[in-house]
Amino acid sequence: MKKQNSILASLPTLRRLPKYIHLLKKMKLNNVEYVSAPLIARELEIEAIQVRKDLSITGIIGKPKIGFNLNELIVGIEKFLNWNNKEDAVLIGVGALGKAIIGYKNFKNYGLNIIVAFDNDEKIIGTKVLNVKVLAIEKLRELVEKKKVKIAVITTPAFVAQEICDILIDAGIKAIWNFSPVSLKASNNVIIESVHLSQSLAVLTHKLANKTE
Amino acid sequence: MKKQNSILASLPTLRRLPKYIHLLKKMKLNNVEYVSAPLIARELEIEAIQVRKDLSITGIIGKPKIGFNLNELIVGIEKFLNWNNKEDAVLIGVGALGKAIIGYKNFKNYGLNIIVAFDNDEKIIGTKVLNVKVLAIEKLRELVEKKKVKIAVITTPAFVAQEICDILIDAGIKAIWNFSPVSLKASNNVIIESVHLSQSLAVLTHKLANKTE
Repeated sequence: MKKQNSILASLPTLRRLPKYIHLLKKMKLNNVEYVSAPLIARELEIEAIQVRKDLSITGIIGKPKIGFNLNELIVGIEKFLNWNNKEDAVLIGVGALGKAIIGYKNFKNYGLNIIVAFDNDEKIIGTKVLNVKVLAIEKLRELVEKKKVKIAVITTPAFVAQEICDILIDAGIKAIWNFSPVSLKASNNVIIESVHLSQSLAVLTHKLANKTE
Repeated sequence: MKKQNSILASLPTLRRLPKYIHLLKKMKLNNVEYVSAPLIARELEIEAIQVRKDLSITGIIGKPKIGFNLNELIVGIEKFLNWNNKEDAVLIGVGALGKAIIGYKNFKNYGLNIIVAFDNDEKIIGTKVLNVKVLAIEKLRELVEKKKVKIAVITTPAFVAQEICDILIDAGIKAIWNFSPVSLKASNNVIIESVHLSQSLAVLTHKLANKTE
């Protein structure tokens, strides 16, 4: 494996790392100080060898027979995920979902800091959702360019999502967290991570309808 | 392959079906009447052979050289996903995310009908979110049993999610849509579909931090 690639974790590993953080923080509330890979493995129903492999990526080394220092491990994972650096973001589409994401304080712990939101509804332009100001969509490009924002959250209806995506990329956005039910098309050097709620619901309702007891 | 299993689509197929619906409905707005598999494939950047395979599961048959009747295909996919039957559901945890999910009208088109919500915050118990009443968490078990509700949406904080999950399953819930950042443990005959927003965000922020241009 080439050295320069080793910093990029695999997608499954990346998706497991927040699970470790959640578990470790829960343990911290119970005053646990040290934790072993087999214990984490048991709690999360993952193979211990996988846990060891995932955690090794953070560079934190456990003590033989004692395990990992809990605090060290939490900080190590958060640092690896870059959650210790808050990254400024814009959000486009201040509907129910957009408001929920602005209101979800936890995302701040995950390195996401929504500084301003955009919508085309005159009734909410100029208002605030919590402490986040809602601006007219026409101001999107200018603000992203001026503040050099790198992350955008798209919570618009499907039919405008691609158009917004194009504006964002043109203005310099590097990563898009997409909640619209659309597969956004973008050039390869832009990161797109989609949360397709309707797809997830499709899995659930179909499985339930075809359940045989 | 055994016949009785053929009704259960693969997970990737299930996740693609809503994409087809979104695209077809967009086309419908433009008065398109017939659509071919290669056209769908091009629009969604999927292989045409995969599109044909996915759509064959609905039993809808296209006409040679013309393609699929658009309306027939939409209805066929929705029927396959059981989205034509609205399934009653309860939601637990009326925070920002819970409110957003109650407020997201689209889920009704996807077969999910949230009839009542639950929380432990006295300030909101007895109030309504849109038309959905918020009840005390103590009433959860009784209502699920009485109304024979099969689907539950969990939007609680992490530390109570497993406890709520246990109550739900004990009361007869068959499918859980889990938004809490916890891997819920449940017996095999209960369907759990999780949307882990923090995991999705982890992928985004880590990739962005390690981006080389």
